[in-house]
Amino acid sequence: MTHPHSAHSVHVEKHFTAGDFVRDVVIGMSDGLTVPFALAAGLSGAAAPSSIVVTAGLAEVAAGSIAMGLGGYLAAKSDSDHYWSERKREEKEIEEVPDTEASEVAEILADFGLEPEEYWPVVNALRKRPEAWIDFMMRFELGLEKPDPGRALQSALTIAGAYIMGGIIPLFPYMVMPQAIEALKVSVAVTLVALLIFGFVKGLFTGTKPLASAFQTAIIGAVASAAAFGIARSING
Amino acid sequence: MTHPHSAHSVHVEKHFTAGDFVRDVVIGMSDGLTVPFALAAGLSGAAAPSSIVVTAGLAEVAAGSIAMGLGGYLAAKSDSDHYWSERKREEKEIEEVPDTEASEVAEILADFGLEPEEYWPVVNALRKRPEAWIDFMMRFELGLEKPDPGRALQSALTIAGAYIMGGIIPLFPYMVMPQAIEALKVSVAVTLVALLIFGFVKGLFTGTKPLASAFQTAIIGAVASAAAFGIARSING
Repeated sequence: MTHPHSAHSVHVEKHFTAGDFVRDVVIGMSDGLTVPFALAAGLSGAAAPSSIVVTAGLAEVAAGSIAMGLGGYLAAKSDSDHYWSERKREEKEIEEVPDTEASEVAEILADFGLEPEEYWPVVNALRKRPEAWIDFMMRFELGLEKPDPGRALQSALTIAGAYIMGGIIPLFPYMVMPQAIEALKVSVAVTLVALLIFGFVKGLFTGTKPLASAFQTAIIGAVASAAAFGIARSING
Repeated sequence: MTHPHSAHSVHVEKHFTAGDFVRDVVIGMSDGLTVPFALAAGLSGAAAPSSIVVTAGLAEVAAGSIAMGLGGYLAAKSDSDHYWSERKREEKEIEEVPDTEASEVAEILADFGLEPEEYWPVVNALRKRPEAWIDFMMRFELGLEKPDPGRALQSALTIAGAYIMGGIIPLFPYMVMPQAIEALKVSVAVTLVALLIFGFVKGLFTGTKPLASAFQTAIIGAVASAAAFGIARSING
């Protein structure tokens, strides 16, 4: 490659922005396609009418999307809080115990097999630049990346939206077919196709082999639903 | 503090091991306490008998724990795959285009305001140590940490177990009380207490203020259940 750094920047940028969006869609849609589908299958297994299946399914989609969305919001929020509290702490330490912090920089570089005469110029250079020094400690000592401010809300809406989109698909047959056990067959077929497509696309984005990803995703849905179906039937089948 | 580095090691270790376990428990139990609770509330709102609520609830717990557990397994697995494929790529680049990789190291250090004479010794030192050089690129260019091998399975079991533990709590009243609408009142009380305790403990581990965390967590459960309750009632209440 002729422009390795720009190529890498693109990669890194992807890794931290599109990557997060894709991850949120995957989190929301994986569960959205799987849980309401499995729940509906389970209730059909307990000989519940379609009306109950749809009620339970939509209640689950509402609860699941809100719970996952708000959960994602708070997770991103606390990542961000964690970063800023750690950053304040580094800033304080660099002011109050610069020598110990400098020796930490030395240790970090020594861990890469560098000799004192090789890393000392870096340590001294950072001591002259407190802001850069804090950035260095955050990224290289604590391995923390500066969080994107809009992240938490975007993450919440992405996860919730993906959950709802995924959840409606397996429930649709029950909305139009009064016999739950009949609707189940259509729901299984439609949802398995959706899981395969979703898994395939997910694979393209996440770097997993698309076909492997398609089958993994479909198998999760199948296993989860089989378990739900079996449990529901064993209770009042 | 007198031993800042050891203190930091402890912190970092926490951040990467106990931190992951706690995060998995939080992921599983947040949804486990919220979604089955909200689903049960929703079905009670649709005047379903306790038997249906319990069936739907347990079907949801089975589906949710399996879906989230397997989802967590695959997420950890693909993080690990991503790390090793990126590492292979860096290894290849360091062999094939060492000069461009060396200039990337220079750029990384220059971003911290270092002068060529300050970072050049480091660049040259890394060129003499390919393994350390790869580690340096993985951590400082791509910001990727070496994944723990047992992580994926441990993550799956932790999430699923936490989901089941959380999910049983709101369903228990429906198992012992035949009138769903009566059981609902007990379920609401028991689950709100559980959410507050869980949120408080979560806050202690994640660094969020415990009381704030307790109320945030309880509010997620309340909002999700209110939505599920409203939707279920609006369909066939």
